[in-house]
Amino acid sequence: MSAAPEGLTVTEQGTVLRDGAFGNARALCCRECGHEVALGPHYACPECFGPLEVSYDFPTVTREEIAAGPRNIWRYKALLPVPTDIEQSPNTEPGFTRLLEARNLAAELGIDKLWVKDDSTNPTNSFKDRVVACALSAARELHAKVFACPSTGNLANAVAAAGARAGIKTVVFIPSNLEKPKQVNSAVYTDSLVAVEGNYDDVNKLASEIAGEEEGWAFVNVNVRPFYAEGSKTLGYEIAEQLGWRLPDQVVIPVASGSQLTKVHKAFQELVKLGLVDDKPVRIFGAQATGCSPVSTAYKADTDAIRPVKPDTIAKSLAIGNPADGIYVLDICRETGGAVEDVTDDEVREGILLLARTEGVFTETAGGTTVGVLKKLVETGQLDTTLETVVINTGMGLKTLDAVADEVGPAATIKPSYGAFVSTGLV
Amino acid sequence: MSAAPEGLTVTEQGTVLRDGAFGNARALCCRECGHEVALGPHYACPECFGPLEVSYDFPTVTREEIAAGPRNIWRYKALLPVPTDIEQSPNTEPGFTRLLEARNLAAELGIDKLWVKDDSTNPTNSFKDRVVACALSAARELHAKVFACPSTGNLANAVAAAGARAGIKTVVFIPSNLEKPKQVNSAVYTDSLVAVEGNYDDVNKLASEIAGEEEGWAFVNVNVRPFYAEGSKTLGYEIAEQLGWRLPDQVVIPVASGSQLTKVHKAFQELVKLGLVDDKPVRIFGAQATGCSPVSTAYKADTDAIRPVKPDTIAKSLAIGNPADGIYVLDICRETGGAVEDVTDDEVREGILLLARTEGVFTETAGGTTVGVLKKLVETGQLDTTLETVVINTGMGLKTLDAVADEVGPAATIKPSYGAFVSTGLV
Ligand SMILES: Cc1ncc(COP(=O)(O)O)c(C=O)c1O
Ligand SMILES: Cc1ncc(COP(=O)(O)O)c(C=O)c1O
Ligand SMILES: [Zn+2]
Ligand SMILES: [Zn+2]
Repeated sequence: MSAAPEGLTVTEQGTVLRDGAFGNARALCCRECGHEVALGPHYACPECFGPLEVSYDFPTVTREEIAAGPRNIWRYKALLPVPTDIEQSPNTEPGFTRLLEARNLAAELGIDKLWVKDDSTNPTNSFKDRVVACALSAARELHAKVFACPSTGNLANAVAAAGARAGIKTVVFIPSNLEKPKQVNSAVYTDSLVAVEGNYDDVNKLASEIAGEEEGWAFVNVNVRPFYAEGSKTLGYEIAEQLGWRLPDQVVIPVASGSQLTKVHKAFQELVKLGLVDDKPVRIFGAQATGCSPVSTAYKADTDAIRPVKPDTIAKSLAIGNPADGIYVLDICRETGGAVEDVTDDEVREGILLLARTEGVFTETAGGTTVGVLKKLVETGQLDTTLETVVINTGMGLKTLDAVADEVGPAATIKPSYGAFVSTGLV
Repeated sequence: MSAAPEGLTVTEQGTVLRDGAFGNARALCCRECGHEVALGPHYACPECFGPLEVSYDFPTVTREEIAAGPRNIWRYKALLPVPTDIEQSPNTEPGFTRLLEARNLAAELGIDKLWVKDDSTNPTNSFKDRVVACALSAARELHAKVFACPSTGNLANAVAAAGARAGIKTVVFIPSNLEKPKQVNSAVYTDSLVAVEGNYDDVNKLASEIAGEEEGWAFVNVNVRPFYAEGSKTLGYEIAEQLGWRLPDQVVIPVASGSQLTKVHKAFQELVKLGLVDDKPVRIFGAQATGCSPVSTAYKADTDAIRPVKPDTIAKSLAIGNPADGIYVLDICRETGGAVEDVTDDEVREGILLLARTEGVFTETAGGTTVGVLKKLVETGQLDTTLETVVINTGMGLKTLDAVADEVGPAATIKPSYGAFVSTGLV
């Protein structure tokens, strides 16, 4: 650290930070070799190119302090890389979504106790609002002038919305074949939606290139990824708090890059370390669509070698063929006694309708994948149906309307008369 | 009341009720003549045909008791016609949505202090989840076998979802020209979506007919309307609680049947009576689309005579040509020093984009109407820009995607290369 005006610090890498910019975060730490780098816009270890992750000096944090916080992710601000006054900054205030007891779905699948953590009711209707809120804070503290991302759709929606509200310029990159609702749901917020001819992995590569060339661009899931990714921990915190400060026995989580799954796992571990919940084994399961299942394929082949694939599935939000955190998903699912499984597009559709008809929750293809995998895990005996299970619904159905639009519709179209209605046989 | 087994009461009208079925509600009371009827599936006064409304014997209710409740509408259960164990019944757990400080929109419109009450993040993405949760409780207590509604779209979504989760048969009726997303968003939950050739008023008439003919059908907004309508009070309660137990100075609310507006007003009055907030004047404004503006037209003509109209507007969720509670909207807006105003379809679209670009909230045509009216109220000097104002966003943009789908889109479609991006000029 060099000398700097009062209240400011200049890191070895030359980043100017105000005191407390990242709350209780202490450094960025390499997930592979443990090498530490000062907090800043860094994401790859200078020693081994491993991914950097935020590490903390946690103070004592009590359940009461958390419960006294706002009804959004900032109740956990002490456990996130954000300043203590984060609630004051304009942001979309995501989180603290419903944890629904899924009695009907449980009965249908033969599971004793099942919960749906329903992140479809976030501000832009996916869990991405959580990670984007954390990335926005980092972008602000790092004086970024552009807030950007490559996206499979939901992230674009979340970045464009949060940027509009925060009054920061946004540029979001999507594959040009993305579902129309997800395109419009970005373009309403930003003038700078860029459609890229290629799949997500192409878009991601382009984003990395731009991040390298341009000054002051915060790509949420590229150069501020360590801060961004921490946002997914709040899903884990909320599950535990909403269960009455307990961990579940099993959790089923969709996997695209794999970031969310690894962070839910990290959240559980932190809660145990902080004494906020009792320690216990939690089996973690990953869900992929067969048309883009590099992690599930490696899991089944009992190898650590994740081979990139060209995605071909209706679950476009999960269509990452070269998942950055896939290897950690394998580690976690194996260590905890979970599994990674995949389902076909038909099973994805079936999963969407199953969740809608049993619990009144309309999910998108990612959620259809997760529910489909839950069902398959039961059928194949990989999930213990006597254990308390949480399935995470990360997105919402209107964004992938076409996936089911041809499968359902009016039972009848009638003239406005009682007689016409009676003749439908629906009475 | 007649004699009945312990724990049960049979009303004069023959309704069998378990004790506490409707919480602190005491009776149904005619809004016109004050005549009282026992709690039950009644909605019109037997003396004068006026609408019946729930009246209560409220106990003392404290802010602390409310704050200790769940993070959904049931925190206000003491003020609703629901049993004390309502949280135990499967329902969609709506409410406690964001109250966003809208600094950017305020600056854009020249208002000193503006909030958006954002009900688009409810379980089925509109405020209708609130009213449906209350109607579902009533349907249960009244032993209904079918849960039904005529709907302009959002209500159908909410009824079908809540019914699926509660495991009760649903039949929902919509105008056959309804937006596709709203159709699919009902059909995913229910096998009995009925499209009716006609406008909402035709659908509503058909529903009344069926309600009269069939036993055991709870039409949420027809024969259990008094219980249903109370759900909208929670919007008013939440606004006050989220402001720190204070009333705002001005509120802008969309008007279809007019139920929501009258109930937000009732909520504020109840909070004052209960001593939960200080009394103060609150100016209430109603928002309609010009293509269906019977209430606004009567307001401007300074008459109480609301003439039914044939709706012709993109704001289909507000397209009720013969609004049941229109007269009470007029009373309230006049008494409180508010107004009823309307905007064209172009202004509705503009309102949608204005809210998205300033606050990162994607609303549907109903919200576009409300924001458009807010803007017009400022421009015409009807709204006092120095007073604290709340605008209610009651729905979400993906449900009326086509309203803006042709107005926005990618700024560029490019090959995945840095050079291609630079040549867009967006860098
Ligand atoms: C709805 C939804 N669920 C899950 C995921 C997976 O996220 P991750 O990349 O963290 O594995 C995504 C990623 O875009 C998503 O959009
Ligand atoms: C999104 C939305 N906002 C507002 C309203 C108006 O409700 P009310 O009939 O209570 O006036 C409706 C009615 O369907 C609606 O769908
Ligand atoms: Zn390293
Ligand atoms: Zn009467």
